[in-house]
Amino acid sequence: MSAEEANKDCLAWAARDSSGVLSPYKFSRRALGNDDVHIKITHCGVCYADVVWTRNKHGDSKYPVVPGHEISGVVEKVGSSVQRFKVGDHVGVGTYVNSCRDCEYCNDRQEVHCVKGAVYTFNGVDVDGTITKGGYSSYIVVHERYCYVIPKNYPLASAAPLLCAGITVYSPMMRHKMNQPGKSLAVIGLGGLGHMAVKFGKAFGLNVTVISTSVSKKEEALSLLGADKFVVSTDKEQMAALAKSFDFIIDAASGDHPFDPYMALLKISGAMVLVGFPSEVKFSPANLILGMRTISGSVTGGTKETQEMIDFCAANGIHPSIEVVPIEYANQALERMINRDVKYRFVIDIQNSLK
Amino acid sequence: MSAEEANKDCLAWAARDSSGVLSPYKFSRRALGNDDVHIKITHCGVCYADVVWTRNKHGDSKYPVVPGHEISGVVEKVGSSVQRFKVGDHVGVGTYVNSCRDCEYCNDRQEVHCVKGAVYTFNGVDVDGTITKGGYSSYIVVHERYCYVIPKNYPLASAAPLLCAGITVYSPMMRHKMNQPGKSLAVIGLGGLGHMAVKFGKAFGLNVTVISTSVSKKEEALSLLGADKFVVSTDKEQMAALAKSFDFIIDAASGDHPFDPYMALLKISGAMVLVGFPSEVKFSPANLILGMRTISGSVTGGTKETQEMIDFCAANGIHPSIEVVPIEYANQALERMINRDVKYRFVIDIQNSLK
Repeated sequence: MSAEEANKDCLAWAARDSSGVLSPYKFSRRALGNDDVHIKITHCGVCYADVVWTRNKHGDSKYPVVPGHEISGVVEKVGSSVQRFKVGDHVGVGTYVNSCRDCEYCNDRQEVHCVKGAVYTFNGVDVDGTITKGGYSSYIVVHERYCYVIPKNYPLASAAPLLCAGITVYSPMMRHKMNQPGKSLAVIGLGGLGHMAVKFGKAFGLNVTVISTSVSKKEEALSLLGADKFVVSTDKEQMAALAKSFDFIIDAASGDHPFDPYMALLKISGAMVLVGFPSEVKFSPANLILGMRTISGSVTGGTKETQEMIDFCAANGIHPSIEVVPIEYANQALERMINRDVKYRFVIDIQNSLK
Repeated sequence: MSAEEANKDCLAWAARDSSGVLSPYKFSRRALGNDDVHIKITHCGVCYADVVWTRNKHGDSKYPVVPGHEISGVVEKVGSSVQRFKVGDHVGVGTYVNSCRDCEYCNDRQEVHCVKGAVYTFNGVDVDGTITKGGYSSYIVVHERYCYVIPKNYPLASAAPLLCAGITVYSPMMRHKMNQPGKSLAVIGLGGLGHMAVKFGKAFGLNVTVISTSVSKKEEALSLLGADKFVVSTDKEQMAALAKSFDFIIDAASGDHPFDPYMALLKISGAMVLVGFPSEVKFSPANLILGMRTISGSVTGGTKETQEMIDFCAANGIHPSIEVVPIEYANQALERMINRDVKYRFVIDIQNSLK
């Protein structure tokens, strides 16, 4: 083995081209800096972003791509200046691992909106010019600012999906003041994001209705996730009965769909938040104007609110519904996610399978 | 003259069919009820709604249509239970004249969103089944709840456009907390609504940029309306320089236009409010989601905030820029408004011309 080869001590699975097929790969991480935390990864959630960049859907993939930005693990080493973490701590890393730390958004702890651009956890260009590699790997080195404390009583496997799916719905729910017991929430689309919206909604004391295209999700929505009501979106009578009835809607449907039928379900002044990513948004201005309604969008969240969200989940016993799989199952997991065949998030058991 | 003819003591101009041509017309108003205010109309603003219903653009016009819902005048009589008004008071009436006064929205003083439907000031069906007739008339009888105090030091001619154009921009500006000195506002479309948005924006201490398709409005926007900056929307270089620079946008453009170029001008978390009425709203979700932006709509406002808006205008010397015309000019005024040939609101001098 050459010296160079010996330095490649980070085990991973990577896609080599736009086929997106993942296979074993070795590389080296940067040396531990003064502010860095060296994390032994135990789990990594499987997010649709993993499909997007392993398959070059945006045309900007930098192969080899090691995906994964829902990372949880255990601290193995810390740099000399690190204050918030010590060896043995449980820790999480989300969708970004660096930012300028000097602009108005960074100063406001909204680092994901950094003026110079946040450095994404994988397929991003770090300040040293290297391409970032994600959590389908055995360890990662991250500036402590972008690491989150995971309470010891919260399972590391459950923590992983919080780092993207969790914060992506929690952040706009807090921003739109959805934590008001007694108000009503509709959740459209019951995938990784949608099912977390149901769980947060119930924890906030909301009356939660799940609207889905498939009646097959009814039983689970009501019994497993604790939704108060389930409506099939193609049932015109049920939909008509819900007109002007919701204070809030979280639209987590990823595919294209009409907006007017859903916006009509909002009360006057109601707010709809888009967290899925359709190809376009199109609706009648009447649904917006006459009802003083609001539609807004959101993507992940800042470091402060991400830590708050994790603490909220730990304090309230909120756990994503997950299917834990070994790294060898990664390709099938991505396929099944594309086919919406997952309840509701895959989490890769890195610790026990990536060796 | 028959007895019936003698009872028709309200002089007006009405459209008889979808040609929309206005001509003199006489009719009778209801007898003064206990809660009613009898108002001698002195002025009525000319709003695009007058075109919509005189020309049956929505297919629901009930001829003869007496348009006008920006009404100012003087109290001539009051019912026995009226408390807020006395003979001689200056008073305004806006876009609606009745509501159930019993639903959650009425109780919240958001009567325009009344669950049973607010009764619009013209072409509406009142609780007694009669069709309401608007302010292109010599007097009107209105329940006091839907009448506004106009301070004696505020010109009645200036007051008229506040009742629709004014409140339509003021209400969402307050709801989105635009009264924060130092923040930035872009106003798209410099008509009746847009020019009020500029005036309110300056009164709130905002840095105001007018974005228009026509460079011809530059001089007036800066000198007459007091905007800080003027940009022609077709100037790609100027538009690019404004990327992510505004906290707020008021979109008062009435015609169809693309939304993405304007949404891209909003800062992270910025809010765009639609008060014009295009045929559809369409944009890329990236502009909403990646920037955590919000787009919302608004139409007029409740009685409480309408009174606040009038008082704010009186206290801060905010006056709509108006062109006062006699009733005989009503047809031309509507034509010129359609052609955007008005700076910035026509007000009909009812008192001196409708005799």
